[in-house]
Amino acid sequence: VITSPHNARVAAARKLRQRKQRAAADAFLVEGPHATGQALTAGTFAVRELFVTAGAAERERDLLRTAAAADVPVCLVTDQVLETLADTVTPQGVVAVVRTPRTSLDDVLRRRPRHVVVLVEAADPGNVGTVIRTADAAGADLVMLTSDSTDPYGGKCVRASAGSLFHLPVVTGIGLALAVERLKGAGLQVLATTTDGTDLDEVGDLARPTAWLFGNEAHGLPAEAVALADRTVRVPIHGRAESLNLAAAAAVCLYATASAQRR
Amino acid sequence: VITSPHNARVAAARKLRQRKQRAAADAFLVEGPHATGQALTAGTFAVRELFVTAGAAERERDLLRTAAAADVPVCLVTDQVLETLADTVTPQGVVAVVRTPRTSLDDVLRRRPRHVVVLVEAADPGNVGTVIRTADAAGADLVMLTSDSTDPYGGKCVRASAGSLFHLPVVTGIGLALAVERLKGAGLQVLATTTDGTDLDEVGDLARPTAWLFGNEAHGLPAEAVALADRTVRVPIHGRAESLNLAAAAAVCLYATASAQRR
Repeated sequence: VITSPHNARVAAARKLRQRKQRAAADAFLVEGPHATGQALTAGTFAVRELFVTAGAAERERDLLRTAAAADVPVCLVTDQVLETLADTVTPQGVVAVVRTPRTSLDDVLRRRPRHVVVLVEAADPGNVGTVIRTADAAGADLVMLTSDSTDPYGGKCVRASAGSLFHLPVVTGIGLALAVERLKGAGLQVLATTTDGTDLDEVGDLARPTAWLFGNEAHGLPAEAVALADRTVRVPIHGRAESLNLAAAAAVCLYATASAQRR
Repeated sequence: VITSPHNARVAAARKLRQRKQRAAADAFLVEGPHATGQALTAGTFAVRELFVTAGAAERERDLLRTAAAADVPVCLVTDQVLETLADTVTPQGVVAVVRTPRTSLDDVLRRRPRHVVVLVEAADPGNVGTVIRTADAAGADLVMLTSDSTDPYGGKCVRASAGSLFHLPVVTGIGLALAVERLKGAGLQVLATTTDGTDLDEVGDLARPTAWLFGNEAHGLPAEAVALADRTVRVPIHGRAESLNLAAAAAVCLYATASAQRR
């Protein structure tokens, strides 16, 4: 049992709470037995190491069996040591170190995606995680985050995605112009969400392969995104709200697409 | 200028950060010039008092003019004093004490609402605020929170509602059974969102006056709510996500209703 937060393995894992360290180590942290279970069973992810408390080891026998079957090293740690690794108040005794997947855009585009979400300059990790979860639920084939977006492998985003980060390809680090060029080249129409576009209800051809561009929570899409898109679309505001939040707007657009494509 | 956080007016306002004190004083706090401006211009709300820093007083001249025209007392406070009132890291120098509106369900039902949202045992203030914002955007006529829900006048919910709390009637403190009875009596169909109901796309009659029941973030609707409703509806999950978060599910349902009712 590791009892010191200064233990080298614990200290190395704790560093992954910082974006720079995640990029350097090509790994991120996953908290809780549920999300860890999803990471263990998702083919493209590899769990490098598992930290568990004695209490969690007692409760989560299936999880430890799955980890053992996958040859994942398990470290028993005290509650205090686990707390130094975790982001949440109640981490439920389990923190995993997971290798960041290298998802290749080429590979995904070869599979002819019909429903794609592109987050441009997204800043709020909770929103990004929620959009990834909603994209998964709506049956989207790919989520892209342009290079100026927040890191989807931070703790808050991983948690908000509720496991969906492990369910569909998430591609990061591509500039906006190149992303749009590649999507158009793959036969997708590119729709930019703005406050003055065509009403979503009037957009007739969502059954076509479609990529959605969503902008930053505070200032929306940059002019460049609007210029690059095939057309602009707005979620109509029927009441007196000035706008929808990013995750709600995305939910409405992605489910409209799912309905049209499955009709 | 008030320089002490122990000043009686400041201390009284600060107490409103607690739910019990809000209930006792029939008032709540609103942060930031934007939301305060919405409270000042919303008819059913009355701003009792405004705390502003010198910097904010300089920047927000229009806001102070509106406050003066409405005979709202304005207290100049130091940045340090304002920080003790505010919930956020950057409160933008303005905190208002606002009277909690007494919205009567009778009054709202007399106006024949066609689109109603009922939150049952909702626990997360951020989610509740986002649903109120989405309900406003979708043109809903009323949001109800059953008596076991979180307080919509807490800081986090007020912020997440982005002003929409001041735009449409929000009724609190009614038990679930009575709420459903009153809504049915007013001619609305009552739909319960569950994971095993009719697919939203297959629900043919959303053009009818409709009330949606949404459950708690973690455990969904209680069995009682499902039994009381006219029917159950689910947002289909096309991918591998286990569920949608409350705010996303609400966005999809409310916009489907708005589309059907405006077609």
